Amino acid sequence: MTRNMIDTPDGRTQVFVIIGDPVTQVQAPQLMNAVFAKAGSNSLMVPMQVSSDDAPALIRALKSAGNVGGFLATIPHKFELLSHANHIGAVAEAAGCANALRRNADGSWSTENFDGIGFVTGMKNVGHAIGGKTVAVYGAGGAGSSIAAALLDAGAEQVRISDVSQPRCEQLCARLERHWPGRAIAVAAGRHLEVDIVINATPMGLGEEDPLPFTLEGLNPNAVVAEIIMKPAETRLLREARARGFKTQAGFAMLAPQIDLYRQFFRIPDTDAAGNSSEAVSSGGFQP
Amino acid sequence: MTRNMIDTPDGRTQVFVIIGDPVTQVQAPQLMNAVFAKAGSNSLMVPMQVSSDDAPALIRALKSAGNVGGFLATIPHKFELLSHANHIGAVAEAAGCANALRRNADGSWSTENFDGIGFVTGMKNVGHAIGGKTVAVYGAGGAGSSIAAALLDAGAEQVRISDVSQPRCEQLCARLERHWPGRAIAVAAGRHLEVDIVINATPMGLGEEDPLPFTLEGLNPNAVVAEIIMKPAETRLLREARARGFKTQAGFAMLAPQIDLYRQFFRIPDTDAAGNSSEAVSSGGFQP
Repeated sequence: MTRNMIDTPDGRTQVFVIIGDPVTQVQAPQLMNAVFAKAGSNSLMVPMQVSSDDAPALIRALKSAGNVGGFLATIPHKFELLSHANHIGAVAEAAGCANALRRNADGSWSTENFDGIGFVTGMKNVGHAIGGKTVAVYGAGGAGSSIAAALLDAGAEQVRISDVSQPRCEQLCARLERHWPGRAIAVAAGRHLEVDIVINATPMGLGEEDPLPFTLEGLNPNAVVAEIIMKPAETRLLREARARGFKTQAGFAMLAPQIDLYRQFFRIPDTDAAGNSSEAVSSGGFQP
Repeated sequence: MTRNMIDTPDGRTQVFVIIGDPVTQVQAPQLMNAVFAKAGSNSLMVPMQVSSDDAPALIRALKSAGNVGGFLATIPHKFELLSHANHIGAVAEAAGCANALRRNADGSWSTENFDGIGFVTGMKNVGHAIGGKTVAVYGAGGAGSSIAAALLDAGAEQVRISDVSQPRCEQLCARLERHWPGRAIAVAAGRHLEVDIVINATPMGLGEEDPLPFTLEGLNPNAVVAEIIMKPAETRLLREARARGFKTQAGFAMLAPQIDLYRQFFRIPDTDAAGNSSEAVSSGGFQP
């Protein structure tokens, strides 16, 4: 992608770090630095490649640096990041992993998981309501966990979760139960006939020869079929769902809203609206 | 100073960190990022403010990040930085402190102290020879130590060191003795009548009311009077020396060459010469 021009950092720059292993593929530095530049914020995001063994000490040490304002985490550090927060957002807690960590004015640290929130925001942005809906989620890993929690947080009536590992599925439901009692249930695959939304949060579809993660047979014709896989942009699931007339949501739709969610979480003013801030910098979707 | 535009970092960016406490005053990010940009190097320097208590863990942790290429250190971390290197340059070893640390291709780390080397390079750049000269250095602290070592490394015949603390002065001479036997001596203040160069490496002159760090009476008329204080740009010492017809070197002259020394140390190609590299990236003044 294009590497936009930004002001060089100076001694007063607030530094944000995205940690990953590997980290070469991340696009957050380019995207977030464009946000910082637009907001006129003397802030900068840089990547750091660190192993799982070394990540805990690196996060602790960077937190001790006074001008480090926050972190993003990509694979495999989303579980580790959670343990460095004083305040854990509801979605992160239920999902058991986080991808953003922020220094607060009082020196404490807040974390949240925006994978699921990004997914839900992407759905809402194109008019797919969540409130009151029944949703089937395939896959109870990191992405599926975050999405299930965010769906419930956004008012979904019921989330039905399937996974090849029945214990993993039931552990997730137990965590969700604590926040949203009675609304998350573990089900066997294939039980989504009457759902409003069905989501693939498994890796099936990364390979062109992969079988479908679930059958489309008998699905409610008004259902939305959603995908979290971004490469390929159109998986076999999306292609077949579209061919059968279902509404679909592609994987990138969950990524696109996340940059603005990170902006709010990191309390960078939104200068899009009218050349000046359209919201208090202390606002944002996060409630620790 | 002007904050030049640079490319945003991306996932492949090599990160350099300047640590200090405070760090807001540093100009290295702006200066080094201009060097990286000119060289077409996907590298970036960011500041990190860290206390002396937290600096050791931060340096260790950042060294564990695969894309961190090196460090600069400003007050108070120059002594700490030295202890994180596998290979210590002669000037850093003699001075007992360092301001640059570099990751080598084999994963080891090399350090050097460019305060003194910058000073000597600044002298040479304006035609003040060092080889064979007798030099008086006032002040055996971090700056004075580094300058004394660099002068000897550059071939000064003898360096005479004075400090308000006689033990500190003798400890420095003992360290210098190991590298350059018989050429560094501790002397009482005022014994510089026959020297070729006399240098103020004390804090005296930071305040406009400060007394001169040494008398100019009886100084060899051809001597160079040099200053390391940068603010004010013209100290009382420099003003009086100039009025009496001595050649002078101002404090900023030791800073100006350092950026290019860091460039070489960090093995960033020099693209000034003819649009392409004028030297092998493995060259540079540093000999671990």
